[in-house]
Amino acid sequence: MKRLFLILAALCVTMSVTAQEALRSGSRIVSPEIHDNNSVTLRLFAPEAKKVVVTANFLTPDGNPVEGTEMTRNAEGVWEYTSPVLRSELYNYNFVVDGVKICDPANVYVCRDVAAMFNIFIIDGDRGELYRVNNVPHGSVKRTWYNSPTLGKDRRITVYTPAGYEQSKEKYPVLYLLHGAGGDEEAWMTLGRTSQILDNLIAQGKACPMLVVMTNGNAWQQAAPGEAADGMGQPAMRMAGSRPAASFEESFGDVIEWVENNYSVIKKKEARAVAGLSMGGGHSFNISRTYPNTFDYVGLFSAAARIGDNEEVKASLAKQRDNGFKLYWIACGKTDFLYQANKDAMKYMDSINFPYTYRESDEGHIWRNWRIYLSEFAPMLFK
Amino acid sequence: MKRLFLILAALCVTMSVTAQEALRSGSRIVSPEIHDNNSVTLRLFAPEAKKVVVTANFLTPDGNPVEGTEMTRNAEGVWEYTSPVLRSELYNYNFVVDGVKICDPANVYVCRDVAAMFNIFIIDGDRGELYRVNNVPHGSVKRTWYNSPTLGKDRRITVYTPAGYEQSKEKYPVLYLLHGAGGDEEAWMTLGRTSQILDNLIAQGKACPMLVVMTNGNAWQQAAPGEAADGMGQPAMRMAGSRPAASFEESFGDVIEWVENNYSVIKKKEARAVAGLSMGGGHSFNISRTYPNTFDYVGLFSAAARIGDNEEVKASLAKQRDNGFKLYWIACGKTDFLYQANKDAMKYMDSINFPYTYRESDEGHIWRNWRIYLSEFAPMLFK
Repeated sequence: MKRLFLILAALCVTMSVTAQEALRSGSRIVSPEIHDNNSVTLRLFAPEAKKVVVTANFLTPDGNPVEGTEMTRNAEGVWEYTSPVLRSELYNYNFVVDGVKICDPANVYVCRDVAAMFNIFIIDGDRGELYRVNNVPHGSVKRTWYNSPTLGKDRRITVYTPAGYEQSKEKYPVLYLLHGAGGDEEAWMTLGRTSQILDNLIAQGKACPMLVVMTNGNAWQQAAPGEAADGMGQPAMRMAGSRPAASFEESFGDVIEWVENNYSVIKKKEARAVAGLSMGGGHSFNISRTYPNTFDYVGLFSAAARIGDNEEVKASLAKQRDNGFKLYWIACGKTDFLYQANKDAMKYMDSINFPYTYRESDEGHIWRNWRIYLSEFAPMLFK
Repeated sequence: MKRLFLILAALCVTMSVTAQEALRSGSRIVSPEIHDNNSVTLRLFAPEAKKVVVTANFLTPDGNPVEGTEMTRNAEGVWEYTSPVLRSELYNYNFVVDGVKICDPANVYVCRDVAAMFNIFIIDGDRGELYRVNNVPHGSVKRTWYNSPTLGKDRRITVYTPAGYEQSKEKYPVLYLLHGAGGDEEAWMTLGRTSQILDNLIAQGKACPMLVVMTNGNAWQQAAPGEAADGMGQPAMRMAGSRPAASFEESFGDVIEWVENNYSVIKKKEARAVAGLSMGGGHSFNISRTYPNTFDYVGLFSAAARIGDNEEVKASLAKQRDNGFKLYWIACGKTDFLYQANKDAMKYMDSINFPYTYRESDEGHIWRNWRIYLSEFAPMLFK
């Protein structure tokens, strides 16, 4: 037995050199350290750096990153920054070391937004509780592929099914949840914390068990960066350049058909919702008005939706109004660059007695708002 | 319509500030740049740095990281390193900027090994083709939860189902694929490239369509870091300290039962394989000898397996030999610290006429080998 212990001991200390190095450096630095009063200390061991700055979305009241706050170096070469007391939220940050923007090497929780990588942490106690993993029944998340005849390709899609779905004989309602420009079928999972929000809202009895289908809304794309055969290049917005066979909205029937053929779902208007942020809000606007009588619930989060003088849009909205629906929910932040566009859309809706509910929030075109909107929208569905 | 274009243009250039920043900096630096001759250039914009080093697993012939190679600064403050011509493989690297180890800010493809984060890239042309996403039918990957009565908790698990599984009325064989110490239910997916390897081998007709079930082998743990209610702390090996109700091997029946109750699988010995690396190789050794007559295929990859003078182990191996099986595959690298332990185990197996196949590779206890072993093992299964 002594030899077995030696082997296990060797395993513990050697493994791969990479892992080993992580443990060695990790034992020195704790970052982020969240204090009992909900302030947070960030740390970086960089004895040779001349200047280290933290950039984060908790340095300014509006939640937008500023150029950053300088960290302070101690005698051992560890740079530190301690935040003010933070309200319960999911936050993100980077370090800028002598002008080089990096992720915190002591924090393995990173997110990607287009081509930017940053670290995240969660402050518990209130809203952040919805974004963390709690000791509740967990749904499943499947990355899979559907064929879109309209776009002429297989496309990657993320499907959340609630806890108990696999064992149940029930049929479930579906929320189609759409990302913004620069996002993909991963965005709502990583930046949006969708599976955590849904697990928690369902466990609290605040939301009905439902499927959440997260599509890739870039018609030119098969899948998120690194997940398609076009390789592991640098992610980009790439809204121009390619010529898809159709728009994403035009192809959305392929998604609905695939979901309803492959999952145990209720194939009725009253059990379908579509919502999205920014470009995905525009998609939700277009999909809900052009798919005839298909959705009882529509959510436009900071939406890029436009009516203007377009007679086709106006006619479809009148038809949508006449067909009726249960909830048309428009949410926008006061400092959002799409604020006025949303106001204009609602002004037109008022003029034709198109019923909607408006939720105005603080702050602007940021994921913090979109997580809040999802947390508020999901409990209103399918009831 | 002009206004719509303005909105879309604003969307393109503003989105979130984070995304915007990524695009701005990303337009300057391309890294990694893979050249036609399969050398690679890495770049970092760090005008104020005094020394930038690249650490990578392609700097030395044995594939183990060394202290690193210095990069060269150009007049604009961009540091560069160009590798020798590389054979087709998946590689990983970090930068060390004045002593601070970071990920390449221009490369969003990162992996975690315990608490270490590093960038990856793939050189095409041969073995790397198996690790990249190709234009082939793709399987699905589901992160879900099973209940383990033996361990007294819900536990997270990753299940790969091959392309066509959902639409098929067939029943499939199952490979249970186990990680090493410091890993979890994500390790084979990220570091092991399991879904890419299986998609590609199946598309080439080299492997049968099969499920691959990737468990969390740490009995003290519910899920990978950040995926359980214990929060987003720094990942650690944590082999000691906690007191699980049973060993992972003792709880493995819960996994098999859950898989066979929830998936369309063949519930026969001839359709079950178990394989693992390092600690997971030890688990596979123990599981295959103690679950009576359950597995026809066993793979020990750089395994921490030990026979010694343990009479219970010897008796169970004799029984396993008498029951028979189709393949007992042992793979180890020449420089692996478990090389002699594997040799000792095989010496005992020889002495009792326990049939096995031995595959000796170059290099040591590294993921490069484990991807190779999986690529060679999977085609031998269920035929």
